[in-house]
Amino acid sequence: MTTEALLQALRWRYATKVFDPNRKIPAEIWSALEDCMVLSPSSFGLQPYRFLVVEDPALRAQLMPHAWNQRQIVDASHLVVFAVRTSITEADIDRFLDRIVEVRKVSRESLEGYRSMMTGMLLDPSFQPMAVHWAARQAYLALGNLLTAAAVLGIDACPIEGFVPAEFDRILRLPEQGFTSVVCCALGYRDETDKYARLAKVRAPREELVRHL
Amino acid sequence: MTTEALLQALRWRYATKVFDPNRKIPAEIWSALEDCMVLSPSSFGLQPYRFLVVEDPALRAQLMPHAWNQRQIVDASHLVVFAVRTSITEADIDRFLDRIVEVRKVSRESLEGYRSMMTGMLLDPSFQPMAVHWAARQAYLALGNLLTAAAVLGIDACPIEGFVPAEFDRILRLPEQGFTSVVCCALGYRDETDKYARLAKVRAPREELVRHL
Repeated sequence: MTTEALLQALRWRYATKVFDPNRKIPAEIWSALEDCMVLSPSSFGLQPYRFLVVEDPALRAQLMPHAWNQRQIVDASHLVVFAVRTSITEADIDRFLDRIVEVRKVSRESLEGYRSMMTGMLLDPSFQPMAVHWAARQAYLALGNLLTAAAVLGIDACPIEGFVPAEFDRILRLPEQGFTSVVCCALGYRDETDKYARLAKVRAPREELVRHL
Repeated sequence: MTTEALLQALRWRYATKVFDPNRKIPAEIWSALEDCMVLSPSSFGLQPYRFLVVEDPALRAQLMPHAWNQRQIVDASHLVVFAVRTSITEADIDRFLDRIVEVRKVSRESLEGYRSMMTGMLLDPSFQPMAVHWAARQAYLALGNLLTAAAVLGIDACPIEGFVPAEFDRILRLPEQGFTSVVCCALGYRDETDKYARLAKVRAPREELVRHL
């Protein structure tokens, strides 16, 4: 991709406030966006999250009031709730190591050093209160990946932080699975009535944000 | 961009362990990657971060021992340290509102509702201990954006969490500026000796990560 095409896509994107409720993302494109999320890198490779694609209209309607009634929740073609593990256990680490063995055809013993590094950090009692923050950072990385992937494919998106995680968690039965919701993303196609599409993008000056040392 | 080209780029990328120390990212491409970071969306649009591009080889050499001597710190063409604000003040919010007025040519009064929403959340005493976590999430979103942008441009990258933030902060004099380092990213070109480039990518099965509700 050329730098100009990439920048054009990133300038074209904006936090879509009004989605066209009649336009659905084609299955093939949606499938690619799911693959993008799965391919997202994460700390140690542990992927301490799940991407919940809420398809059921009744479930979406139930979530909306807990997101300040933002209509993107129900109108967008697709809605992803990013849920993260609230703690990391030895079983999580071992399941991940089993996966490495499976994919890379290496011995379990060859991963002992890696295992010690992970258990040393992630199972340390001082880490437990940080686990959810650590996991949330990884989910936001995946969100950044998804937003950029959507932009280059010409898909509109709206990252949504304005919701009540406890209510989303209750409705989606996340606590009993050891997860909590941290951020959402609605995706689809902008409605032509969305006045936000025409507003100039506001960013701090580059020389303020980027410092050369 | 086609879905296949995008997925190919994301499968091509990996956390590069050995960079070719002799290859530099061309200025025009680097400039585009800086623009990508600047264009990254953030909570309320507040961009509570700075992207520190560490160019001085002496400074990079000083940082390396505090990143477990990972040579990407000194060998990569470019090194970005993501630094976030450790607290959000009324002045930060007002500077952002001034920027909206400047870019969108709107009145300051028209932004009062938006101002109240931001001050209500961000200046609440209960938010202060969360500020750095909130800001770090935004920085990780920008990191995800940068990694995907780099991949589609054919630039290698390595996100780096394995460093001692307190030491990086001290060397980069961040505390006195109200910032702290949260994550780094080295970018450049993989060295042909990097055996990690040839390893199969390990990700959890898609059906485990992506749930349809």
